[in-house]
Amino acid sequence: MADYRKMWEDLGMNVDKHDLLCEALPDAFGGIYLSQEKRPEGMNYFNFVVAEIHGVRPTELLEHQARGGKVFGTFCVYVPDEVVFAAGGIATGLCGGSQFWVPAGESVLPVNTCPLIKASVGARLDRTCPFFRIADMYVGETTCDGKKKAWEILAGEVPFHVMDVPQMKRPQDIGRWADEIKGFIKVVEEFTGNRVTPEALHQSIVMLNNKRRALKRLYETRKADPVPISGKDALLATEIAFYDDPSRFTEMTNNLCEELEQRVKRGEGVFPAGAPRIMITGTPMAIPNWKLHHLVESAGAPVVVEESCTGTRYFEHLVEEEPRDLDGQIIALAERYMKTNCACFTPNSNRIQDILRLAQEYRVDGIIDYNLQFCGLYSTESYLVKQALDAQGIPYLHIETDYSEQDFEQLRTRVEAFLERLRK
Amino acid sequence: MADYRKMWEDLGMNVDKHDLLCEALPDAFGGIYLSQEKRPEGMNYFNFVVAEIHGVRPTELLEHQARGGKVFGTFCVYVPDEVVFAAGGIATGLCGGSQFWVPAGESVLPVNTCPLIKASVGARLDRTCPFFRIADMYVGETTCDGKKKAWEILAGEVPFHVMDVPQMKRPQDIGRWADEIKGFIKVVEEFTGNRVTPEALHQSIVMLNNKRRALKRLYETRKADPVPISGKDALLATEIAFYDDPSRFTEMTNNLCEELEQRVKRGEGVFPAGAPRIMITGTPMAIPNWKLHHLVESAGAPVVVEESCTGTRYFEHLVEEEPRDLDGQIIALAERYMKTNCACFTPNSNRIQDILRLAQEYRVDGIIDYNLQFCGLYSTESYLVKQALDAQGIPYLHIETDYSEQDFEQLRTRVEAFLERLRK
Ligand code: SF4
Ligand code: SF4
Ligand code: SF4
Ligand code: SF4
Repeated sequence: MADYRKMWEDLGMNVDKHDLLCEALPDAFGGIYLSQEKRPEGMNYFNFVVAEIHGVRPTELLEHQARGGKVFGTFCVYVPDEVVFAAGGIATGLCGGSQFWVPAGESVLPVNTCPLIKASVGARLDRTCPFFRIADMYVGETTCDGKKKAWEILAGEVPFHVMDVPQMKRPQDIGRWADEIKGFIKVVEEFTGNRVTPEALHQSIVMLNNKRRALKRLYETRKADPVPISGKDALLATEIAFYDDPSRFTEMTNNLCEELEQRVKRGEGVFPAGAPRIMITGTPMAIPNWKLHHLVESAGAPVVVEESCTGTRYFEHLVEEEPRDLDGQIIALAERYMKTNCACFTPNSNRIQDILRLAQEYRVDGIIDYNLQFCGLYSTESYLVKQALDAQGIPYLHIETDYSEQDFEQLRTRVEAFLERLRK
Repeated sequence: MADYRKMWEDLGMNVDKHDLLCEALPDAFGGIYLSQEKRPEGMNYFNFVVAEIHGVRPTELLEHQARGGKVFGTFCVYVPDEVVFAAGGIATGLCGGSQFWVPAGESVLPVNTCPLIKASVGARLDRTCPFFRIADMYVGETTCDGKKKAWEILAGEVPFHVMDVPQMKRPQDIGRWADEIKGFIKVVEEFTGNRVTPEALHQSIVMLNNKRRALKRLYETRKADPVPISGKDALLATEIAFYDDPSRFTEMTNNLCEELEQRVKRGEGVFPAGAPRIMITGTPMAIPNWKLHHLVESAGAPVVVEESCTGTRYFEHLVEEEPRDLDGQIIALAERYMKTNCACFTPNSNRIQDILRLAQEYRVDGIIDYNLQFCGLYSTESYLVKQALDAQGIPYLHIETDYSEQDFEQLRTRVEAFLERLRK
């Protein structure tokens, strides 16, 4: 790894504590990722991004700031990155995926808080993540109880804008979300000093649609049996999509796809044909939360699709590119984003339709409903998911877990028993 | 107790199971309430209401239905009862406060759900509460994660309307809430077959303002030292306000107030003058959740005010009575309801201002921040509450608990230690 120590110090990071994090990552990544067999060549880029995760991209963000650009940190796929890029800003995901940050989060948040929120707040307070230091403004949303309240704590630290996500999906809620996007445009314009013109917004819509198209193409290859890429690798690429430069990400992902499409043509895969195909549905997985994928794939079953915000929800819908006027573009954005089926909506029955559809499309043998601990939204919704899958006779396993390794063996036993059921 | 068995059977209740609940209540109520010394005469009415809780008021609701009237069940002080009464309906609170209903709730909800939600869902599924059987329509709201998702389960049982509460308190959010109220008026009109006329709405606004004025008058007497009524009794009256006929409740509460005002004049109280005066702030307490009040007052300290939805939040703000046209009335309703400072809003700093103000007004010696277990909103906000109270040097205790009696002795120890601190 290059020497970024000076940069981290300049960012006011707790460099000694950060060293501990840096020491742990290569081992974890090596054991989980690099040990896989027949990995696509195209994953090298993503390996590199992870290896230099606190170096390369942060350096780019700092260069952008040195040129007068602003960086916006986000926590949810409901925040329209298009607006940020159209104003010459850069949007970057800030969701914490590591147990490393949980204790600092617990110093201000109840223990009964979802690990994603604890890690995100902890990463800020701990000063051990460059992304959290670099972002000029954080953009939150009103999706879940824990986040709504965490924003109030983070707002004491850094400029903060909150978007009020409608809690329902009635026709009028698209208009409401459009109003929030309008308000966001104003905030971003003021903060960056740049206008969001229809031309710039069109460009960013196309740029981010292209990122979605690349991910869609990647997931398309996962429909093959044998599957040409592990679920772990596909997850990693999806996770990196939240941080990376969008155009480069698109290019690198398309390169990977070409390789994978060749594999599919040749009938080559990373798991034997006929291995039980698993869908994971539920809460998002932020880097380096690879726990469940690692468990499932170590037991010999490929994860072929994730119905989650680090999965299909991130790319399935494109923004309509036709409108060239701001009002039309805002409506197009609102319509696209409101198609994302998060458990924060009541009701959220379209998510269940999505799960059933994806199970068919990806020829899934069993579904694991993955739930970050203390996420009341997804854990309560799991009752309805289970009902729907039972009715269709699709094997179902519900797993609630955190970022720690404590329950690893217990989960392994449950996952293996589930796979056993599928193999019969 | 009169014999309501036939009525309960006709309501499709599980009468045998319900008997268990009925058997437990008198003992609990006797031990906690009737054993108090120097209780005001005016509490007799409220004792009677509790003794006949599943009989008298349900009978009235059924009579109302026999006359063609509709009954609406609600779960939050954000739902404007005014609209229901203006359409000739009756609104009644449905929040479950008993551990008795928790297991049935847990059969469909995660264990990590707030007991209020578990008990509310359990009361419905268990068929052991006449109110849950009688209500023709339930009205939910989007205040917290657990409730948003619980509505989807309850909506499979009974006609359900959800109001989308804005999650923030910006100027535009009053307009949004006004739109929700408009939508609610339409739903209520269709469901009852009656128009909500400006005249009828004016009447119900005045009627419910009068209920609020009576409660305000009651709480006013609690500012005296010695305090003329126990916190337990004041809580009971407030809880009953959610179920009872509003006009009768107002009359009976005003009667009680006259007695209490006499006591204040004479310097009579139910605790010795100078006893440490406690405020409880936090999550609501539905009948028969008297656990914390009982603990505190058994230890010799009166609870003199509750900053909660079964406390000041329920009555502190009146609806402007001036507007006589529907649009003006709807705005007046929206403005009034949006003044209620629930932790579901981000930010919710006005609640902290309220707590500090009430601490002065009620000459409070210490504050207990009460938190139903797994309520992420209030438990996260407690960090900010504590910060504010520490800054003011106001003694503070945070208690997180459920409806069970399991932690009773442990809580007693903590409460007693806290009071000891105040007595020094
Ligand atoms: S799961 Fe919901 S709250 Fe979380 S990132 Fe996705 S849309 Fe946002
Ligand atoms: S996983 Fe659930 S609780 Fe955690 S941030 Fe996402 S929606 Fe909120
Ligand atoms: S605490 Fe909030 S959600 Fe609960 S009744 Fe009060 S306003 Fe409604
Ligand atoms: S106490 Fe909290 S979790 Fe429970 S219903 Fe009220 S706001 Fe929701």
